Amino acid sequence: MTYTLVLLRHGESEWNAKNLFTGWVDVPLSEKGVEEAKRGGALLKDAGILPDVVHTSLLRRAITTANLALDAADRHWIPVKRSWRLNERHYGALQGKDKKQTLEEFGEEQFMLWRRSYDVPPPAIEPGSEFSQDTDPRYAGEPVVLTECLKDVLEREMPYWESGIVPDLQEGKTVLVAAHGNSIRALVKFLDDIDDDTISGLNIPTGIPLVYELDESFKPTVKGGTYLDASAAEAAIAAVANQGR
Amino acid sequence: MTYTLVLLRHGESEWNAKNLFTGWVDVPLSEKGVEEAKRGGALLKDAGILPDVVHTSLLRRAITTANLALDAADRHWIPVKRSWRLNERHYGALQGKDKKQTLEEFGEEQFMLWRRSYDVPPPAIEPGSEFSQDTDPRYAGEPVVLTECLKDVLEREMPYWESGIVPDLQEGKTVLVAAHGNSIRALVKFLDDIDDDTISGLNIPTGIPLVYELDESFKPTVKGGTYLDASAAEAAIAAVANQGR
Repeated sequence: MTYTLVLLRHGESEWNAKNLFTGWVDVPLSEKGVEEAKRGGALLKDAGILPDVVHTSLLRRAITTANLALDAADRHWIPVKRSWRLNERHYGALQGKDKKQTLEEFGEEQFMLWRRSYDVPPPAIEPGSEFSQDTDPRYAGEPVVLTECLKDVLEREMPYWESGIVPDLQEGKTVLVAAHGNSIRALVKFLDDIDDDTISGLNIPTGIPLVYELDESFKPTVKGGTYLDASAAEAAIAAVANQGR
Repeated sequence: MTYTLVLLRHGESEWNAKNLFTGWVDVPLSEKGVEEAKRGGALLKDAGILPDVVHTSLLRRAITTANLALDAADRHWIPVKRSWRLNERHYGALQGKDKKQTLEEFGEEQFMLWRRSYDVPPPAIEPGSEFSQDTDPRYAGEPVVLTECLKDVLEREMPYWESGIVPDLQEGKTVLVAAHGNSIRALVKFLDDIDDDTISGLNIPTGIPLVYELDESFKPTVKGGTYLDASAAEAAIAAVANQGR
């Protein structure tokens, strides 16, 4: 008995395309991102990997990706669950800033520390400022988040993994998680037991389903899982690594 | 204390545009239908009527309408619930048939009996035939439906009203139901206590939110509810009444 978990990073957003730090800012998919989402769904359908339930973040780019991918896979009718715990990493005061400008302003070392260190968050965003979500109604009743490092993401994601995702897997459902670069990296770190240094070099491509078969203790039978389009994934991973250059 | 219920009939589908009986056949929205859905969401946003939860059928045209309307209203992130009990009326052996041809073949009386009588279903569809859903995985474990009259729709919809929708209203949530001409007519018949003959003359326009304020016994404070764009609703209702002519 194995369980099937599919991770899908949203397609390109309008701010990915503009090379801005996005985090919790709720930007839509770009036209390219829409096509990536549809193609992700077609890959699922072609592989015969049909989700029985989908979990998304509360951000439009992941929600739209799930909607479009499931429609393309003829699985638009499955149950939908959402949680802020699957959101992208909150990028703090960097949200809305240009990645290249930030690199030039703060230098390579600080830039890479913010982008890739495991436990150094960017400066907190000012509550009430343009790109802060502290008064957004979708987060009402939840802890206010003003910045996060990857460790923070993993820590807020784990309760949802345990209480939201694992129960669906236990029922034998094929589970699709439509989420973000860093919420997927955090989950992969946990699943594949990747150490704090190594995770900094791991990139997740957009729009390509990453399929994990999990054993009875919810550990991967194949470390790293399997991308449904391996060669496209490889090319996309290389491109992500070069962002901000 | 009142409760807010919003009913939204999906935008024009590709088969509405072709004038075919659709029922449970899972056709997509037409381009016009996509625009209607977005406009429905804009009307909600402009009116400040913001759904806290959405209920949809299992059919693509209602699901896509909900997705697009909620995105336009900035409420894409709310919880989603789905049930086949909100599906369009199953049109039996008429599914996939041209409305005008059916009118010519069977005559005005039989045609209107199938379309508008309260308790006369069309002939059952043949299981396994092109436009039957008897083996569709989304209905696995549910009773097989081969044809329905409006009375059948009301009877299968009521358990979901009681167990799915009322509990959300009771929690004070603004509830959006994205569904179909006949599943909404059935619900309106129940809410407004419309008799079996009168309901035949009631048409629901596509893409225009119909807002009910309900009292403590879940009965409308204003009979018939309020369309968010009353003049567009009036014109659309007249157009629906002339379908098949």
